[in-house]
Amino acid sequence: MAVHIGVVGEGVCSARVARDAERAGAAIARAGAILFCGGLGGVMEAASRGAARGGGVVVGLLPGFRRRDANRWVTVPVVTGLDQARNVILVRSCDAIIAIGGMYGTLSEIALALKLGIPVVGLRTWTLRQPERRRVPLIVAATPEDAAARAIRAAGTRRRARSWLA
Amino acid sequence: MAVHIGVVGEGVCSARVARDAERAGAAIARAGAILFCGGLGGVMEAASRGAARGGGVVVGLLPGFRRRDANRWVTVPVVTGLDQARNVILVRSCDAIIAIGGMYGTLSEIALALKLGIPVVGLRTWTLRQPERRRVPLIVAATPEDAAARAIRAAGTRRRARSWLA
Amino acid sequence: MAVHIGVVGEGVCSARVARDAERAGAAIARAGAILFCGGLGGVMEAASRGAARGGGVVVGLLPGFRRRDANRWVTVPVVTGLDQARNVILVRSCDAIIAIGGMYGTLSEIALALKLGIPVVGLRTWTLRQPERRRVPLIVAATPEDAAARAIRAAGTRRRARSWLA
Amino acid sequence: MAVHIGVVGEGVCSARVARDAERAGAAIARAGAILFCGGLGGVMEAASRGAARGGGVVVGLLPGFRRRDANRWVTVPVVTGLDQARNVILVRSCDAIIAIGGMYGTLSEIALALKLGIPVVGLRTWTLRQPERRRVPLIVAATPEDAAARAIRAAGTRRRARSWLA
Repeated sequence: MAVHIGVVGEGVCSARVARDAERAGAAIARAGAILFCGGLGGVMEAASRGAARGGGVVVGLLPGFRRRDANRWVTVPVVTGLDQARNVILVRSCDAIIAIGGMYGTLSEIALALKLGIPVVGLRTWTLRQPERRRVPLIVAATPEDAAARAIRAAGTRRRARSWLA
Repeated sequence: MAVHIGVVGEGVCSARVARDAERAGAAIARAGAILFCGGLGGVMEAASRGAARGGGVVVGLLPGFRRRDANRWVTVPVVTGLDQARNVILVRSCDAIIAIGGMYGTLSEIALALKLGIPVVGLRTWTLRQPERRRVPLIVAATPEDAAARAIRAAGTRRRARSWLA
Repeated sequence: MAVHIGVVGEGVCSARVARDAERAGAAIARAGAILFCGGLGGVMEAASRGAARGGGVVVGLLPGFRRRDANRWVTVPVVTGLDQARNVILVRSCDAIIAIGGMYGTLSEIALALKLGIPVVGLRTWTLRQPERRRVPLIVAATPEDAAARAIRAAGTRRRARSWLA
Repeated sequence: MAVHIGVVGEGVCSARVARDAERAGAAIARAGAILFCGGLGGVMEAASRGAARGGGVVVGLLPGFRRRDANRWVTVPVVTGLDQARNVILVRSCDAIIAIGGMYGTLSEIALALKLGIPVVGLRTWTLRQPERRRVPLIVAATPEDAAARAIRAAGTRRRARSWLA
């Protein structure tokens, strides 16, 4: 079964961050992985473009009520109608995620992935310090291609603590 | 953009219902539409098999926490972790749904689709009588191929009342 | 622990249906049960008014993003932001539900409750015929007070099949 | 309408963190606010105990399928069946939240609250550094009583950016 890599980041972003996201998406598609994202603009759109131009499958988990909210590169739009709660579905569906940039939605997805035991690779994203200074297993990447490579490698090693029941 | 057709029905079903679901799935793939389903066994698996054998894309919106819950024909598994609430995502993501058979989960998906203005085609499914005897716009199909054809036709005519806000 | 009774019905309703809902809410509060509802207008507001005037606790599970969407009788507003998916929470949180009137949202809540093994009492609501003509355990009430009494009695007998995992 | 204050923190915690949570819960009840929490053990249970012993209302938004998962101090258990996605409901329903301690679930709730414009008060919790070093509006409290006082004060000043639509 294909590897699923998520790219998370904000819906409005700088040109530099968009270039990073597009290169990450392209690298994910080159590796034969499916890209999962939130389906909207900014980082999501740039990553989708990179993956779709490379012939990849792009799943867009939309927060709203309309398929046409999806950016034009999404090949499988899923209309959740769940607003922020769709982030949980995104993280759960992936073997690893790449977090790009530093807004709050991105932070919540990093945290959810850490909680669910799904590897997170960060590219110019948050620095987190736990109060008891335990090590936070956030993998830091230097470039988008490095991020994709680390995410795909980490995808195989994923811990399996996905539910509060477990 | 591709047409999205959902097939809903129970996770355990008779051989006859499974044959119907498989033929419906095959007809959906032949028409070039994407099949959306709940990703598990019974009607969901049979429809997935029909579509996947025909080369179609099969999105499985899984209720639980594990990708491996998906039947083997699902090509895009989405792990929602939302149990029954994933039915809302399934219905919302489709242009029309086909309901096969008569258990309660199927009834809830029929009702949700009617609520959200998404056409529903029924194949040997529930008969519903509204207390004021208003007409319920449930399209009745005679065969699985008829169901697929009616669903694809209805997909173009979908009303757009998707949110309580609207 | 208190008994939880849900009242489900549409957000816009006739004066007659509203009177029924208000009497059902009043009877629920008199019995010392907590009323759960969707928190908006119509049947939800009328049931809330009946319960709150009788000194009862009224939990409103709101579909949208704002607490002020709640009708004025809700004492515990919960802001889900999940649109229709909040219906699943409503049904799950109750020991029994009372369905009043006959629109599609109500039908979806009846179906969910049947699916989850939560008793449903209907008051001038849908008539359902299963394709294999199995008996549907929908309890029919003659009056709002009868509906509340039957719901509270049924609350004790609830089957426990709440998850697809079970 | 009553002020809603959420207390978020892990389901297993040290005795010291539990004492902090209990004192925060007690201060919330003394102020006449409703306590919202995840309804389980650890920080959630300690905060619930503090509030319930002070005569307060305690809403527990449970991740699982059973009301009896609630700790004994919860007065209004809501059974979401949504696992981690219930955190979104918790944050959305509050005017301010208090984050205690430093595990990943807590971090995701801090991030969600920041995203939704809901004030967050931290007590021995995460230190966050945004990549462009913008100021993160996380209010730091010295004691549980200070946290409750700051949360209640901040509740009045809440920004209103609750949906990606807004």
